[in-house]
Amino acid sequence: MKPVPYPTIQRFPLYLEVIKQLQLAGIKTISATDIAQNLGFTNIQVRKDIGYTGIIGKPKIGYNIKELEKVITSFLGWQNTNDAILVGVGALGSALLGYKGFEDYGLNIISGFDVNKKIVGKKIHGKKILHIDDFESQVKLLKVSIGILTVNQSSAQQITDLMVKAGIKGIWNFSSENLKVPDDIVVQRENLSASLALLSVKLSHKFKTKQ
Amino acid sequence: MKPVPYPTIQRFPLYLEVIKQLQLAGIKTISATDIAQNLGFTNIQVRKDIGYTGIIGKPKIGYNIKELEKVITSFLGWQNTNDAILVGVGALGSALLGYKGFEDYGLNIISGFDVNKKIVGKKIHGKKILHIDDFESQVKLLKVSIGILTVNQSSAQQITDLMVKAGIKGIWNFSSENLKVPDDIVVQRENLSASLALLSVKLSHKFKTKQ
Repeated sequence: MKPVPYPTIQRFPLYLEVIKQLQLAGIKTISATDIAQNLGFTNIQVRKDIGYTGIIGKPKIGYNIKELEKVITSFLGWQNTNDAILVGVGALGSALLGYKGFEDYGLNIISGFDVNKKIVGKKIHGKKILHIDDFESQVKLLKVSIGILTVNQSSAQQITDLMVKAGIKGIWNFSSENLKVPDDIVVQRENLSASLALLSVKLSHKFKTKQ
Repeated sequence: MKPVPYPTIQRFPLYLEVIKQLQLAGIKTISATDIAQNLGFTNIQVRKDIGYTGIIGKPKIGYNIKELEKVITSFLGWQNTNDAILVGVGALGSALLGYKGFEDYGLNIISGFDVNKKIVGKKIHGKKILHIDDFESQVKLLKVSIGILTVNQSSAQQITDLMVKAGIKGIWNFSSENLKVPDDIVVQRENLSASLALLSVKLSHKFKTKQ
């Protein structure tokens, strides 16, 4: 099987959103063109991306919409919910605990961990906040494989080491630290500054070219 | 001038972070290798990226660290602070209002807008929350050019139209809506689901190849 390019994987959630919207509207079949038009992509790109899932469409009709949803969801491994825990219940951590969209992406955040006495023992957006001292035992007990890291840069590596020790396999890193992990651990870095950089440069470029 | 690839632009904030850390440690000159090692990138990539700024390093010594910081900051347009407003003060919006890192990226969020009577008129993380009815007059008065969109998908297009009408030129879109805007407006889409897709697929791939 050919390896699937990362940009393709990153576009799949967008396709799922379009599929869900059109399903709600009662649509039964969907073409690459429908998806492309909804998202402002080219037909060729959408068709190529979908090709990686192995689904076969009918010429001039397209794909069975339910089947397409199923193959993409399955490709992403989102048909089963993955349990996750979050460490660092500050402003961003709290926001993520309350973000309802994650359930659509097969992610269930079980609880948050922190050291702040004001919040440990309480619930935030319905999720229990536990003390970091209980982290390792909880992760082992619940067999959680995904850790969401929303601590400051200064404690990011220390918490990462703790996550790895407790058996976490995938870390979603919202801190700005470049984490060091063993080879069998996957780190996905979330970088708001990178997006802001693109926005700034695109904006200044537009202004320049217009003058 | 050659157009600078988007991935290069997205890496520049990471380089700035390394530069700032090393400056704090008293370092005066920095090489592409120093940056590459800190971030786990290749020397060639870092050297090529930095090349786009036009700065010239000395062989075997590297770049003057202050000068390198200056050229990257200037390339990103972050030497001057850009004022922004945020619409949609829910969990995510509140988190962004309180995110201190933005100031390093030349972004100053002046205020938040919402319709929720419980928060309008109050301050969140020191930022005043105003009613959306006052949006257009405030943006025109303060000449704000960047709008941060953290509303639900269902109201995203409506708020976008309002932003465009008020004179906003760049929209940082955290909603899952594919926004329709005039040609002279820049939209930067933030897509948490795309990151989560990558994490899921990388994780399942690792598990598969290990079995």
